[in-house]
Amino acid sequence: MSQRLRIAVLGAGRIGSMHAEHVARRVARAELVTVVDLKGELAQSCARSCGIDDYGESVADVLSRPDVEAVAICTSSPTHTDIIEQAASAGKHIFCEKPIDLDLSRIDRALEAVEKAGILLQVGFQKRFDPSYRRVRQAIDSGEIGEPHAAHLSSRDPAPPPIEFLRSSGGLFLDMMIHDFDMVCYLLGHEVASVYAAGSVRVDPAIGEINDVDTATVVVQYHNGTLVTIQNSRLCTFGYDQRVEVFGSRGSVRIGHAYPHTAVVSSKQGIQRDVPFHFFLDRYKDAYIAELQAFVDAVLDGSDSALSGMEGRMPVVLGLAAQRSLESGRPVPLTEITAA
Amino acid sequence: MSQRLRIAVLGAGRIGSMHAEHVARRVARAELVTVVDLKGELAQSCARSCGIDDYGESVADVLSRPDVEAVAICTSSPTHTDIIEQAASAGKHIFCEKPIDLDLSRIDRALEAVEKAGILLQVGFQKRFDPSYRRVRQAIDSGEIGEPHAAHLSSRDPAPPPIEFLRSSGGLFLDMMIHDFDMVCYLLGHEVASVYAAGSVRVDPAIGEINDVDTATVVVQYHNGTLVTIQNSRLCTFGYDQRVEVFGSRGSVRIGHAYPHTAVVSSKQGIQRDVPFHFFLDRYKDAYIAELQAFVDAVLDGSDSALSGMEGRMPVVLGLAAQRSLESGRPVPLTEITAA
Amino acid sequence: MSQRLRIAVLGAGRIGSMHAEHVARRVARAELVTVVDLKGELAQSCARSCGIDDYGESVADVLSRPDVEAVAICTSSPTHTDIIEQAASAGKHIFCEKPIDLDLSRIDRALEAVEKAGILLQVGFQKRFDPSYRRVRQAIDSGEIGEPHAAHLSSRDPAPPPIEFLRSSGGLFLDMMIHDFDMVCYLLGHEVASVYAAGSVRVDPAIGEINDVDTATVVVQYHNGTLVTIQNSRLCTFGYDQRVEVFGSRGSVRIGHAYPHTAVVSSKQGIQRDVPFHFFLDRYKDAYIAELQAFVDAVLDGSDSALSGMEGRMPVVLGLAAQRSLESGRPVPLTEITAA
Amino acid sequence: MSQRLRIAVLGAGRIGSMHAEHVARRVARAELVTVVDLKGELAQSCARSCGIDDYGESVADVLSRPDVEAVAICTSSPTHTDIIEQAASAGKHIFCEKPIDLDLSRIDRALEAVEKAGILLQVGFQKRFDPSYRRVRQAIDSGEIGEPHAAHLSSRDPAPPPIEFLRSSGGLFLDMMIHDFDMVCYLLGHEVASVYAAGSVRVDPAIGEINDVDTATVVVQYHNGTLVTIQNSRLCTFGYDQRVEVFGSRGSVRIGHAYPHTAVVSSKQGIQRDVPFHFFLDRYKDAYIAELQAFVDAVLDGSDSALSGMEGRMPVVLGLAAQRSLESGRPVPLTEITAA
Repeated sequence: MSQRLRIAVLGAGRIGSMHAEHVARRVARAELVTVVDLKGELAQSCARSCGIDDYGESVADVLSRPDVEAVAICTSSPTHTDIIEQAASAGKHIFCEKPIDLDLSRIDRALEAVEKAGILLQVGFQKRFDPSYRRVRQAIDSGEIGEPHAAHLSSRDPAPPPIEFLRSSGGLFLDMMIHDFDMVCYLLGHEVASVYAAGSVRVDPAIGEINDVDTATVVVQYHNGTLVTIQNSRLCTFGYDQRVEVFGSRGSVRIGHAYPHTAVVSSKQGIQRDVPFHFFLDRYKDAYIAELQAFVDAVLDGSDSALSGMEGRMPVVLGLAAQRSLESGRPVPLTEITAA
Repeated sequence: MSQRLRIAVLGAGRIGSMHAEHVARRVARAELVTVVDLKGELAQSCARSCGIDDYGESVADVLSRPDVEAVAICTSSPTHTDIIEQAASAGKHIFCEKPIDLDLSRIDRALEAVEKAGILLQVGFQKRFDPSYRRVRQAIDSGEIGEPHAAHLSSRDPAPPPIEFLRSSGGLFLDMMIHDFDMVCYLLGHEVASVYAAGSVRVDPAIGEINDVDTATVVVQYHNGTLVTIQNSRLCTFGYDQRVEVFGSRGSVRIGHAYPHTAVVSSKQGIQRDVPFHFFLDRYKDAYIAELQAFVDAVLDGSDSALSGMEGRMPVVLGLAAQRSLESGRPVPLTEITAA
Repeated sequence: MSQRLRIAVLGAGRIGSMHAEHVARRVARAELVTVVDLKGELAQSCARSCGIDDYGESVADVLSRPDVEAVAICTSSPTHTDIIEQAASAGKHIFCEKPIDLDLSRIDRALEAVEKAGILLQVGFQKRFDPSYRRVRQAIDSGEIGEPHAAHLSSRDPAPPPIEFLRSSGGLFLDMMIHDFDMVCYLLGHEVASVYAAGSVRVDPAIGEINDVDTATVVVQYHNGTLVTIQNSRLCTFGYDQRVEVFGSRGSVRIGHAYPHTAVVSSKQGIQRDVPFHFFLDRYKDAYIAELQAFVDAVLDGSDSALSGMEGRMPVVLGLAAQRSLESGRPVPLTEITAA
Repeated sequence: MSQRLRIAVLGAGRIGSMHAEHVARRVARAELVTVVDLKGELAQSCARSCGIDDYGESVADVLSRPDVEAVAICTSSPTHTDIIEQAASAGKHIFCEKPIDLDLSRIDRALEAVEKAGILLQVGFQKRFDPSYRRVRQAIDSGEIGEPHAAHLSSRDPAPPPIEFLRSSGGLFLDMMIHDFDMVCYLLGHEVASVYAAGSVRVDPAIGEINDVDTATVVVQYHNGTLVTIQNSRLCTFGYDQRVEVFGSRGSVRIGHAYPHTAVVSSKQGIQRDVPFHFFLDRYKDAYIAELQAFVDAVLDGSDSALSGMEGRMPVVLGLAAQRSLESGRPVPLTEITAA
């Protein structure tokens, strides 16, 4: 293993470009080798803005290069598992954007390939690397709030994505709430008994017309009786709403809005702060860097994945249960999904 | 009608004594005529500390007195409807502590008696008279936050009441969460479609042994798709947790902890405030005065009840639905309860 | 001594009416005997609204009544010392609104009369009885913030009083900042070395025309090196600004705005609270009750005054020093004032 | 001019190393050409960690290189003006760490050299590039708070620097409070009438032994009557205290502590946040990048300096006035300093 991890970024869209930039300039002990995209000009432009000349259009080509030690999979979701399997066969370590896939059997096949190849896979749920969420986890792990009894998470986006995107997104539970499901697992573990979901169309009727919801609430019930509520909305006029509160036998811990500055203006209208960070690229800028750093460190130092494939699988399970609950109007035991 | 409303307080326990003191000293245009309790010495001691000599042991006696224009019913819950019916027949205006009753048919009979007698009935959900909750309602009524889409309420008590009390309390949903159900109705109206409840025993196994829960979560779903989550716990180490957030199409409004003072201490341990008001008598002191003032004003000025019998009935409906949901493990349409 | 302290309120203006109401209804073990005002109709109206019939126009008459045990002096400031001397001779305990007087020799004569008569005198600086300020003092007394090194106080009024009032008020330092000087003494003691004052006219030129300032800053320097800054303004668009921060060797304590409710509204305009309590009658309502309760308790229980004449004298000393500093443009050693 | 500004960093101590890293990796359109330090090994190690091989020991050598377009002066303060004059003669643009110098005549000679050479000089007061301070400025510039009437700034360091450093630092007013003086000028302009300073030794007697103070308060009075107070301390147990509040005719704006995360832990001990960012490298990380970006942009785009030499001179003037005020015990008119 070289002193720096040589990484190829696959996919040069919004999220891929960001990761490429971080590999090139922000992540210690990392080197951006090449950027690949089906659209060559996208790959080239991304590579150039990262200060490298190497780019390509073929994933297969890049996987055959001995100077590439790891890949960051930032292509469209349905392509993830195939690329994971190929990259694993080629012996490349893998950072894969969420979700691994929306189909559990495909996920399982990919995870088997990873295990067999003995390479390291890290899934991209960046919120785990944000200092506020980490402090929540620490308050639980340290016993500071005692045994968790309940939690509440809210996530709301500044505005809905285009209907075209939503049509193939897998629905609110698998596209958006999946981040909250991951956070629930990160904070409270995997021993979920059942999921109950309610949803409605309050923001845009067009979202209802494609059989999705834009407003949703979920109850996640743990075997030990811990009760979690999650609220999501596709529209939040004041920007990006990302909060969590965990309540336990000795106290509670919560995180509030994250702001670009701390100024407070007082006038006869009231005492006012400007709106929080508007969306995820601003809110989680440092978390995206930290997750890649964790990936690079884990590979170079030979430690375990900070967010393994099994961790990446669980939010999909919860999302599928929520989807089925919404459709059936009843709480869905997790065994229904995992047994499928 | 006299210039001051002459009130008899029925029941001289903790809550009755408080109301008697408020009538005697804090509520404008009110006069405390007498205090009644089955235990005469309790009634006497309460009367004396309010600066009056008149007290008694018989509700019937007091209802026959022409110098009593109104009663404040603070006796044990199972006696409420009988006293309401008798007081209504006697033409006395009625302030009645929550709940009216836990049986809908008894409630309906009592409300009929009230209607027939043409007297005014106000039910005692004091949180509606707290400035913070009123500001939340105002933010909704004024359109400040647009059309409500979702809400979250949390209520947690500093410690569970004695098991003896819990045994006859009606259970967490009808004894404790009933305040949240009232708040939901106050803020979002009565057009509820269904209630889903989950509960567990995390605080004290003895609570489980009497078939109650100490930790609970409810989803209230409105016909228009508004989704509400409620979290309750019988134990909160930092005191009394009373918060609500309503999220709408144009913004959101939330209330936080209420504190006895605003001091913040900074040290190497962190930046710290002392705990909030410990429990309801401290937290809602002014709201209890304001609700009686509203009652007195409504009677003397001939306006409508600020919290009518039908308003007092609805939280019981929601509580019964939640109880049935917990027992059946499925969401319960409200029609199941109201049709019963 | 009776079980209840029988009090006559002298002066039925804004502040006297408030104290009368508190004595009559809010202060335990107190009884309002009579209300006196040069304008009889004011006294009568105040008495009536407190539920008593007794009122009068003559202070001398009231001081000769054996059923009056204590007086609350709420007349105009220049009359305070004369009434104190007469009331002391008559053996009445005295609650006196601030300031005792603006002339130190008159104050000293009045305090001598009090001492000679052996009656109890409490001066009316109500902020000492507010829970937030008391918590600041507690943080100092308990050693929580270590040895105090510095402090900053800000006081700003919602709008200037009428010019007519200001003309005879004694100026900003003796009329308004005197409350801050009292707070400084309450928190940090009397060992002041010097006072430096700067002032300007930023709010209303008419205030400058009567040789007063409307914007002022003072540095109070203690013998031990503790450094205090005070900022005052006669105009604050968002209402009543009353804050203090004390910084010490182990940490700091500060108090923020006090609000009528805790609601926060979020919208695309920002995250906003409504303005704080508008002015002193709202902000310090409970503190005004608490200070009279302390007076009644001290008299009935035979304990020391909670705010003795010497405590009431010190803020005047600081105010005179500040006034002289403003006029001379240099820091004024306290010995210059006390030696005068 | 090239598309990227080719910069040499002079001085590879703590602050120089940070700037070198930023030029190399964080600042757009910038290129780190070389690092210079009297101690060659320091320069080499800094260069290497920035990914370049070029380093040196001689400022003169670097100023003669045609491939260097700009220098960042991070050497010890007494060397600043000489290097500015040499760099200006050599036609290099200059970013210079604060202070330019502590001697006004040396500053003036250096600024003349800059003006004559027509190169751009930016002085390094990084707080001007922090979003919170910029929002304060914006609230003033936009008229949001009306005409400023008063301000209060507090700056406290987590712990005093070594006595050896303090001995040659110029004293608290010129070493530490100089940042607050710059902020006052940034927010309220240069029209200062006088400065009054009080100081004491509360933290460490050793600081008193070298004739410095560790606790200080200053009043800055503007010609238009605006009154500013500043508090500084060398010791703050909860970390780095950096706050400002500006109060005006239409409202006020203030900034609070900046925190690494937003988590709040509630327990029976209270409601608590962890301490703020500990010191300047954490607190102002992004501001340090932004100031260099502003420098690079100004040079490449031909715009004015974001923080010119005259801006860099004014805080020194205020610091010298404060020092003289402390020594003389009286307010010092600014004309005394500038006329010297």
